[in-house]
Amino acid sequence: MRSLLLVCLLIGSGSSLLAQKQTVPQPSGASGECVLYVTSAGEQFDAARVALKQDGQAVTGTLKELKLAGTIAGNALELSAVRPDGNEFGKFHIRMTGAEWTGTIERGKVETTLTMHRIGGLGTAPQTLPFVPTAYSRLFTGTLPPVLRINPGDTVRTTTIDSGGIDENGVPRALSGNPQTGPFYVEGAVPGDTLAVEIKRIHLNRSSASSTSNLAPVALTPECYRDAEGDDVVSAAWTLDLDLDHGTASLAKPTERLKNFRIALKPMLGCLAVAPGNNASFRTRWQGPWGGNIDYRGIREGTTVYLPVAQEGALLYLGDAHAEQGDGELNGDALETSAEVEFAVHVLPGVSTSGPRAENGEYLMSMGIAGSLDAAVKQATTQLAEWIEKDYKLTPHEAAIVLGTSIQYEIAELVNPQVNVIAKIRKDVLTQLSQ
Amino acid sequence: MRSLLLVCLLIGSGSSLLAQKQTVPQPSGASGECVLYVTSAGEQFDAARVALKQDGQAVTGTLKELKLAGTIAGNALELSAVRPDGNEFGKFHIRMTGAEWTGTIERGKVETTLTMHRIGGLGTAPQTLPFVPTAYSRLFTGTLPPVLRINPGDTVRTTTIDSGGIDENGVPRALSGNPQTGPFYVEGAVPGDTLAVEIKRIHLNRSSASSTSNLAPVALTPECYRDAEGDDVVSAAWTLDLDLDHGTASLAKPTERLKNFRIALKPMLGCLAVAPGNNASFRTRWQGPWGGNIDYRGIREGTTVYLPVAQEGALLYLGDAHAEQGDGELNGDALETSAEVEFAVHVLPGVSTSGPRAENGEYLMSMGIAGSLDAAVKQATTQLAEWIEKDYKLTPHEAAIVLGTSIQYEIAELVNPQVNVIAKIRKDVLTQLSQ
Amino acid sequence: MRSLLLVCLLIGSGSSLLAQKQTVPQPSGASGECVLYVTSAGEQFDAARVALKQDGQAVTGTLKELKLAGTIAGNALELSAVRPDGNEFGKFHIRMTGAEWTGTIERGKVETTLTMHRIGGLGTAPQTLPFVPTAYSRLFTGTLPPVLRINPGDTVRTTTIDSGGIDENGVPRALSGNPQTGPFYVEGAVPGDTLAVEIKRIHLNRSSASSTSNLAPVALTPECYRDAEGDDVVSAAWTLDLDLDHGTASLAKPTERLKNFRIALKPMLGCLAVAPGNNASFRTRWQGPWGGNIDYRGIREGTTVYLPVAQEGALLYLGDAHAEQGDGELNGDALETSAEVEFAVHVLPGVSTSGPRAENGEYLMSMGIAGSLDAAVKQATTQLAEWIEKDYKLTPHEAAIVLGTSIQYEIAELVNPQVNVIAKIRKDVLTQLSQ
Amino acid sequence: MRSLLLVCLLIGSGSSLLAQKQTVPQPSGASGECVLYVTSAGEQFDAARVALKQDGQAVTGTLKELKLAGTIAGNALELSAVRPDGNEFGKFHIRMTGAEWTGTIERGKVETTLTMHRIGGLGTAPQTLPFVPTAYSRLFTGTLPPVLRINPGDTVRTTTIDSGGIDENGVPRALSGNPQTGPFYVEGAVPGDTLAVEIKRIHLNRSSASSTSNLAPVALTPECYRDAEGDDVVSAAWTLDLDLDHGTASLAKPTERLKNFRIALKPMLGCLAVAPGNNASFRTRWQGPWGGNIDYRGIREGTTVYLPVAQEGALLYLGDAHAEQGDGELNGDALETSAEVEFAVHVLPGVSTSGPRAENGEYLMSMGIAGSLDAAVKQATTQLAEWIEKDYKLTPHEAAIVLGTSIQYEIAELVNPQVNVIAKIRKDVLTQLSQ
Repeated sequence: MRSLLLVCLLIGSGSSLLAQKQTVPQPSGASGECVLYVTSAGEQFDAARVALKQDGQAVTGTLKELKLAGTIAGNALELSAVRPDGNEFGKFHIRMTGAEWTGTIERGKVETTLTMHRIGGLGTAPQTLPFVPTAYSRLFTGTLPPVLRINPGDTVRTTTIDSGGIDENGVPRALSGNPQTGPFYVEGAVPGDTLAVEIKRIHLNRSSASSTSNLAPVALTPECYRDAEGDDVVSAAWTLDLDLDHGTASLAKPTERLKNFRIALKPMLGCLAVAPGNNASFRTRWQGPWGGNIDYRGIREGTTVYLPVAQEGALLYLGDAHAEQGDGELNGDALETSAEVEFAVHVLPGVSTSGPRAENGEYLMSMGIAGSLDAAVKQATTQLAEWIEKDYKLTPHEAAIVLGTSIQYEIAELVNPQVNVIAKIRKDVLTQLSQ
Repeated sequence: MRSLLLVCLLIGSGSSLLAQKQTVPQPSGASGECVLYVTSAGEQFDAARVALKQDGQAVTGTLKELKLAGTIAGNALELSAVRPDGNEFGKFHIRMTGAEWTGTIERGKVETTLTMHRIGGLGTAPQTLPFVPTAYSRLFTGTLPPVLRINPGDTVRTTTIDSGGIDENGVPRALSGNPQTGPFYVEGAVPGDTLAVEIKRIHLNRSSASSTSNLAPVALTPECYRDAEGDDVVSAAWTLDLDLDHGTASLAKPTERLKNFRIALKPMLGCLAVAPGNNASFRTRWQGPWGGNIDYRGIREGTTVYLPVAQEGALLYLGDAHAEQGDGELNGDALETSAEVEFAVHVLPGVSTSGPRAENGEYLMSMGIAGSLDAAVKQATTQLAEWIEKDYKLTPHEAAIVLGTSIQYEIAELVNPQVNVIAKIRKDVLTQLSQ
Repeated sequence: MRSLLLVCLLIGSGSSLLAQKQTVPQPSGASGECVLYVTSAGEQFDAARVALKQDGQAVTGTLKELKLAGTIAGNALELSAVRPDGNEFGKFHIRMTGAEWTGTIERGKVETTLTMHRIGGLGTAPQTLPFVPTAYSRLFTGTLPPVLRINPGDTVRTTTIDSGGIDENGVPRALSGNPQTGPFYVEGAVPGDTLAVEIKRIHLNRSSASSTSNLAPVALTPECYRDAEGDDVVSAAWTLDLDLDHGTASLAKPTERLKNFRIALKPMLGCLAVAPGNNASFRTRWQGPWGGNIDYRGIREGTTVYLPVAQEGALLYLGDAHAEQGDGELNGDALETSAEVEFAVHVLPGVSTSGPRAENGEYLMSMGIAGSLDAAVKQATTQLAEWIEKDYKLTPHEAAIVLGTSIQYEIAELVNPQVNVIAKIRKDVLTQLSQ
Repeated sequence: MRSLLLVCLLIGSGSSLLAQKQTVPQPSGASGECVLYVTSAGEQFDAARVALKQDGQAVTGTLKELKLAGTIAGNALELSAVRPDGNEFGKFHIRMTGAEWTGTIERGKVETTLTMHRIGGLGTAPQTLPFVPTAYSRLFTGTLPPVLRINPGDTVRTTTIDSGGIDENGVPRALSGNPQTGPFYVEGAVPGDTLAVEIKRIHLNRSSASSTSNLAPVALTPECYRDAEGDDVVSAAWTLDLDLDHGTASLAKPTERLKNFRIALKPMLGCLAVAPGNNASFRTRWQGPWGGNIDYRGIREGTTVYLPVAQEGALLYLGDAHAEQGDGELNGDALETSAEVEFAVHVLPGVSTSGPRAENGEYLMSMGIAGSLDAAVKQATTQLAEWIEKDYKLTPHEAAIVLGTSIQYEIAELVNPQVNVIAKIRKDVLTQLSQ
């Protein structure tokens, strides 16, 4: 199983494995890659990649850590699964009929049903695909038809509208609440994989942004919040002029004190998500292991974001561009605006992650998304520890020494249904580790 | 009232007001600066600076926002206090006998007692004072006699031993638990003032440090913490070689993976405190508004730390030097070692702050110390908002725009009785604000 | 607007207003009750009840606090809306064509579109309706077709399967994860209303329950959780025999120590929900303002639960019966079993609540559902304060005195995606308040 | 080691072991009970009970789990210590000179110093001792001289003043902030023991109490807190008339709505503490493992509270009587008043507990005191689990089944520097467990 990190280092070094076209041999008979779902009471509840190879009547393969071996007779495929310790796991009885094969899994006296089908192929070279959205989603969901089907390696050039639904021409295109461009269906992405989204370009495409002038109560003592309300411009939304040539924002109607106040533009995406698992549909102000409204200023040009695939095709959403954002997004809004976005997608087959991760040339970044900062910091640290333990073959105590001396935290976002804490580590610390 | 920030900017610009000697006119009669305590049932419960000026029999003065005016006859001083709105606050009847004057405060029918004495003078030019500690305190307390009395403007050159009580020669000098150098009594510091501690130098003075190889459970999911315990070097303390010439630390007995692992040394002080108020005494692993074991990597050479004075003389403690520390101090210990420390003290009279603050050439930093990250972030943000509102004369909404776009958080420390979150802002953002 | 509490007190006193059939005059022309949606970009984003009365060509009515007046000409209805202070709000231009009327709202220069339709009538006397479920939902969602349409006042007799999907005969009927009976569409319930679900009967209908034998890490120190894992029956599920005649549960295969251990049965529903707003779909282990997997032991026979309607028809779900549950549901599961449930529904038109509430003969209960206990206790207390302030016409300070001396908290549930804290007050405290 | 619970059950059954006089044989030679302190750098840092028995020149004994054996020659006592597994722990070299013996502990090549002295005897039968306080402490501290020395088994009859320092006659006796009666020195209590405080009587001794009319922001959403402040009686303190004959409180100057509002009196103690360990001194609004301002309504007549002894003599404090208190003490104050208090003390030698516990006839109660509710609930549950595991010889999984089905939580207090969550279980659940 190729490690996330190695993939990433390759990207960093200019010889990106991700950028190379992954070729898939044309399936013949049983040979090829499939996704297998265990089903019960009409629902799929577990999924796994299965790789099979047919040689005459004999078939061998793998399913996670299981070794498969058996025979094919007509469309009947019979496989025995053996654990790494040599003990039998069970038997798979599969009928290879139509696009969706069916069958049963026999484990002792227990029999469950399965369905199985080939994973979508990748017949073409990587392409750059322009996409002009015509509708926007205010849900992160697996229930919408894809707006575009793309292959791993492809690059998409598209646009996002602002969190209030306004496009680059000032035209309302959707209701407020982070309407999304997407979903994009990524061929070959199945549950249990990780989707890598390489952000190649975020270009602001209008000369205004909007925000508000309150600090969120989540970041203030109750007394401070109460007293701030006595101010004479309560809750006022404010508008910014964006000077794209000089890369700064300024208040359209500044007060005397703020007349020279300039904010350096650092465009980022507030939302990046795959469809949540289990058929759940979350409003686009939400976030979870599947990403969402993560509002992390590190989601910029040059960053690759890793999201755990929970549904076939991954179903990628993006939106909510910010011209800049302070830690915590304390105004409730950042500098909300529209943007042109260019991104490439890659699939890390069989690489499973418990939550959103990211990396750029300098850092590995893990996101802890939870109902409190105290819970989020546990998730972020744990995920980063697991990441470096796996990719650098460290024991927990070696990882503890590395992280204890070198971890850095960021509080990305405080004002959403869940908070987002980043745990990150510099890559040049990690390159010191002997392989 | 001189703003903290202006003082600081002056420091930054090389014409430090703090570095200049504050001269105090020799008191004569009632003239001069006093500290007044309201007392009841044998306890002092409120303190304030009083500035008086005698002109013949007439005396005028100030006490916080009150204007004082009255007459002196022998040692009887009678003063009326008037509020800013012109209404009378009450009368002070003072008997100027001995070093500790006594008297009463008459407000309508209510009479409370007072004591009052002159604030210590500063008869000499700023000095650099070497101090070799012979004993160490494991309490932050106002109950210990000072080890040295110093004047504002003075610089102290001293040493600290490591958190385990070991000195620069490897000799145990105190029990473990952050034994402190101090307390230093700062002349002229009274409750309601702020003490500025300018850290001029932190020089590591031995070639070893120690730490541990676990990640604290506060930073891990319960499952990750449980599983890490299965490791074969559970809880092991580890020793580092410090290469002071090259500014790096390495493991004294590294594993194969960590044999090339180097940590860049960035010496800092884990503990800096004044005596807590209300006669409380906290163990030196604690922290609070009075500072303490704050464990923030920003407490380095070139940083000035501001602590609210709660007891006459401030009673400054320092210790727990770290050769380097990751965010959160996740190993429970950082790289614990001994150090030479050089610091200057300054008193900001009548400037009151609600918790520890710091600044260096680049940032204003506010520390939120509380029982959870969610509470700490509120304190840190509120304190930073109050700081810039006051010093830059911003309304809450103007401050909200500035902070919302530019605030940065750090999670300084997670493993102590209370956590410490930093809210900070770049000074070059603030210099854009029109005065 | 009829207060929730008065309604409830009437239920308690045997002369329940809720139990009486609410008769709705047959609509004629514009007369009758409608629900109006503001729409934009193809989405509905705000809803309100509108009551209209036609007298010849003249039409009058109300929409929340607005007074409506205008005229009808053919199918064109023109209304002016006036605020309580006498100022104009705007104009409504409505075309009464077909079942779904359309139109515009004109406010100054801004024009938004609307749709509007009659609220479902209630042509029959209250009924008791048996319902045998054939499928179960593992989502709380507004996207499923109702299993039954019922009128306010109706009583439904149905069954629930256990959280693992097993029915009263031990037959698997759905996947694990709190599969629900429902959704039930309640005629006349529109967004902005409150649905009252009166739980008349929860009868256990099989002689076994299941649970687990771990304490959740959320309730233990990390060290205690880690050490408990060393136990020899790690993670073991356990089975209980339910003695329905004597009302006790006992372990099917007890250890020696637990051979006489009996748990008194107190059947409750773990899940009760309406469809979440904004088209969101949550897995049935979730909870929110719309209810869900609230896991509160107070949801028993004799309790009425109030849920804020977010979608037309409310779309009521129920399931996850527990034979008994300790506070916090610390085993992750309670005593999971199947049940017969009988409930009546009532609609409180125009009564809006911010989260789940409940009451029985003894208590008013407010549920705080949030990402941490510290956040949940704020929600629960606030909602209870608002409840008694409104229904007893108390000022915040009067409510503070009543709650400060008499509030009680329960920690209902700790192991779900959000925690649930109950704030409650005895009704006999409230009956002392002068009206 | 006698279990806490057995002791308690005996109390409950009327044949209290605690109520019986513990007789201590007159020490002779080395025989008797001592407390041993390991010392270093002039500080004591570990303490343990040592029981010795001399027979001629031979001496045997125990120190925690160690077996001691050796000889005495003049005043030189030489002991070898053996672990339960038969391996040697080390050697003790003790010089029995004067009241405070000195010596060394030799473990391999490491030698530490020790001091040791006899534990205070109990020469008399249990007494009932009246005590009239003349001064009050606003610190929980080990630095104050005891106001009275008492023996285990003794009962003290004394009084407490209210949290504002006002006594039963309305006379101010101390500054505000929970001034305490005490400290009481309990003979024979040494670090590592548990002090049991049996509350025999709390009798209110005046006809008034005071409180405030705000809800604390910790219990409200920020918006609710902000809006409540607009009320016209902001922050008002309020006075109650206590009708001691009828056991009710009413507002001295009620509003119209509250004219019939009566609160049933349930007197309790807000503060009960032993001296904190490590020489720390906390203000009397604080709380910790040593008890303090725990503000739990369960601290009533008939309750026995267990506190871990951290300093010789335990140094017991009590105060802050409440005529009644709602959960969380949401007004910041409860019904603050003065009281007569009668309590007995008992020492559970060698029984160590990690935090405050209590029991009455109905419940075992464990207190979780921490910086957030989420942390406090972990402590409370863990401590209760450890309690029943030890006293009922349950495995963690058996305890999980018992607690998971029967635990109850209370939120005792929300407004102090740390919060207090109670985990409790009915004793009649526990009596079902086979011994």
